[in-house]
Amino acid sequence: MFSKVLVANRGEIAVRIIRSLHELGIKSVAIYSAADRESLHVQLADEAVCVGGPRPQESYLNMKNILAAAVGTGAQAIHPGFGFLSENSQFAEMCQACGITFIGPHSQTIDLMGNKEHARQQMKKLGVPVIPGSDGYIDNVADAKRVAAKIGYPVLIKAAAGGGGKGIRRINNEDEMTDSFNEAQSEARLAFNDDQMYLEKIMENVKHIEVQIFRDAAGHAVYFPERDCSLQINKQKVLEESPCQLITNAERKQLGEIALRAVNGIHYLNTGTIEFLMDQNHHFYFMEMNTRIQVEHTVTEMVTGIDLVKAQLKVAAGEDLPFNQSDIHINGAAIECRINAEDADHNFMPSTGKIKYLYLPVGNLGMRIDTALYQGATVTPFYDAMIAKVIALGHDRVEAIEKIKRLLNEMVIEGVKTNQAFQLAILQDPTFITGNFTTSYLEKTFLNKWKEEHTQDELVRS
Amino acid sequence: MFSKVLVANRGEIAVRIIRSLHELGIKSVAIYSAADRESLHVQLADEAVCVGGPRPQESYLNMKNILAAAVGTGAQAIHPGFGFLSENSQFAEMCQACGITFIGPHSQTIDLMGNKEHARQQMKKLGVPVIPGSDGYIDNVADAKRVAAKIGYPVLIKAAAGGGGKGIRRINNEDEMTDSFNEAQSEARLAFNDDQMYLEKIMENVKHIEVQIFRDAAGHAVYFPERDCSLQINKQKVLEESPCQLITNAERKQLGEIALRAVNGIHYLNTGTIEFLMDQNHHFYFMEMNTRIQVEHTVTEMVTGIDLVKAQLKVAAGEDLPFNQSDIHINGAAIECRINAEDADHNFMPSTGKIKYLYLPVGNLGMRIDTALYQGATVTPFYDAMIAKVIALGHDRVEAIEKIKRLLNEMVIEGVKTNQAFQLAILQDPTFITGNFTTSYLEKTFLNKWKEEHTQDELVRS
Repeated sequence: MFSKVLVANRGEIAVRIIRSLHELGIKSVAIYSAADRESLHVQLADEAVCVGGPRPQESYLNMKNILAAAVGTGAQAIHPGFGFLSENSQFAEMCQACGITFIGPHSQTIDLMGNKEHARQQMKKLGVPVIPGSDGYIDNVADAKRVAAKIGYPVLIKAAAGGGGKGIRRINNEDEMTDSFNEAQSEARLAFNDDQMYLEKIMENVKHIEVQIFRDAAGHAVYFPERDCSLQINKQKVLEESPCQLITNAERKQLGEIALRAVNGIHYLNTGTIEFLMDQNHHFYFMEMNTRIQVEHTVTEMVTGIDLVKAQLKVAAGEDLPFNQSDIHINGAAIECRINAEDADHNFMPSTGKIKYLYLPVGNLGMRIDTALYQGATVTPFYDAMIAKVIALGHDRVEAIEKIKRLLNEMVIEGVKTNQAFQLAILQDPTFITGNFTTSYLEKTFLNKWKEEHTQDELVRS
Repeated sequence: MFSKVLVANRGEIAVRIIRSLHELGIKSVAIYSAADRESLHVQLADEAVCVGGPRPQESYLNMKNILAAAVGTGAQAIHPGFGFLSENSQFAEMCQACGITFIGPHSQTIDLMGNKEHARQQMKKLGVPVIPGSDGYIDNVADAKRVAAKIGYPVLIKAAAGGGGKGIRRINNEDEMTDSFNEAQSEARLAFNDDQMYLEKIMENVKHIEVQIFRDAAGHAVYFPERDCSLQINKQKVLEESPCQLITNAERKQLGEIALRAVNGIHYLNTGTIEFLMDQNHHFYFMEMNTRIQVEHTVTEMVTGIDLVKAQLKVAAGEDLPFNQSDIHINGAAIECRINAEDADHNFMPSTGKIKYLYLPVGNLGMRIDTALYQGATVTPFYDAMIAKVIALGHDRVEAIEKIKRLLNEMVIEGVKTNQAFQLAILQDPTFITGNFTTSYLEKTFLNKWKEEHTQDELVRS
């Protein structure tokens, strides 16, 4: 096992990884930007190295400085967390060249899955159902129209190198195709220096269901119970849960086996997540694969009792997977609410500032709050607005909902505005409570109601 | 189920109960003393009633005021927590007379188990092995000498009404009997207004092993995996764990069946704990039964995933036990460290003051901190020094130890002195790590080493 690992990230995920390192008796090295000198991950780590200025490009994306920090501190491995360099195959290669283990899959796998259209074709080849769409890249508007006519509108035109909602357009009918295709392609060229596009059918009334998998160097592979991440705004997940209430055990097993076929077929190493859409007939369609630990891995940890980051470290060190499929059980239901520093009453504008008072409810069974917050910490404008993840485990979904409502009611964060009240409103929403919601529900239905009510409130107040 | 419950306690246990009430959708009523106006349990409850002055006798033991608060707020039940009125049969009777459910066993059961000698005789009758000793009360020194000669010195002379270390003496040989017997008896007369005494053999090199049980009104009964509470100072538990590392599954089952025989034999209602001594041959001897929830119920909750306070509420409301014996599994190993406001460097003197800064590490799997602390809270001299319970669950005991060490290393409590460093020292002690320690280890061996080292430190510093 490694004796020292560098964590190439910040915020709650860096803190979360450092904690698992400490429990394994592994020394931790934090990196930080000039804006993060007093961050919790810096305080908790055994060593910390400043790698650049506050902007991500200067520090958390600064591959050379990060590798220099790893070499300089004698770290044998780098855990990239999520975001930043976690799905950067060049960085994975540079690590290897420096004799440092990148904790994640091989760089070729990152490349393969990073190109969404390559991934799609590879999955199709392996017999994994994919969303109907183009067979390979679409070179021009005429081809796009031909494919769209065949699979039926609405369709999505997507950049193969895409991510973060860039280079992507919804096209409702043939008339919209020319402009949207050209727009998306030039956006992709600017954002990713890569203008290869492909096309997919837009599936409506679907759930976002994802399956986390794990595979070790010896080829042992397991899947975890699915997560329902259908509650999203602007393609950003807001609230996640595991398991999905609508999926039967037989479907779960079938889905898990599809996921295993996929990861065995590409000789995947370490953990990753396959994202599927599930239609109303409970058919699953491959969307994409994330080749890293995800934000919402916490609900899987809570519901199975397995520390996924510890397993990542073991597998990266060449050990066998520390569990078999038969060790993975669903012990109830888990829900995570992402707490963002944003003003939910004013169009979710980011909110920054110093944390003046903090109360995190820590007692009783089945709760967990992953955060880098402490009283006196500063939320800066440089990074993601997600400042805490509140997670509850109940014997069943009803208990998990009651528990997470209690946690959100008790939690006090003063100094920045948060979406706490918005999350509480979701938890009390009748549609949410049924479990029967699709990927469009939050953005198309719930959000409008929320905005209406909160505008009314303001009118009354003024 | 009840719609409103009064919590007749304070501090972390009141907070813990209120949280379970809220998760069950039950309104909570807090009571508080004049010293506790700003306590967390008061802030979290739906309603709060001041029941008297800061001294326990004026408030948390003030039965009339507490009942008046319950009647006045329309509470249908009272949860007594532990300590204070939790094992007061008169209070249980008064509740009944007011038409309020006392959440605990019948008052007769409290009486029976409250008299340690009656309890012992009852257990003997039921075939539960008891510590060798007198058959009933000892009237005079001559009788005491006769029994002691038969069972062998050293013996313990104990007040039947005893508790809190009062009316109890160790007697090493016949010469010491006369003085010690008389001292203990007059102490008992003063403390409990009851001078009935009995005698027990002092068992050396034993572990304190206890079994929590649950029994509903319909007579369904279950036992939980045992707790090892051998680490004590002055009969006060310091660190508890579940399961005990030295006990086999077969022994666990045998012990559980003894416990069930005991509680079925006395038609026990709700939860309680039977305390045993385990000798080096793994024979178990009944010590006493606690007819309430205990401080250390948390390790059982963590290791089984069952909320025992919720089950108390259900059983008290007349519902069936919400679990069967087959639902109770050992999911790893759990450890609790009691954090006391005391100066571990100066003979564990109580420490009081305002909490100036608080950092409670809340992230990652398998942790729990039950506390009423918050930044700005005050630790007063009126109540128990225990201010927090830090609990960790690991896949095995090694992981649990690593996790709780990490929690204690991260936790910051400023404003009062605590025994945090003392607990960390225990967790690093080679004998503790083996699991092979007895009830005398902490007080007789470890504490001396601790004091020596800390005195040396002071000499060096001065």
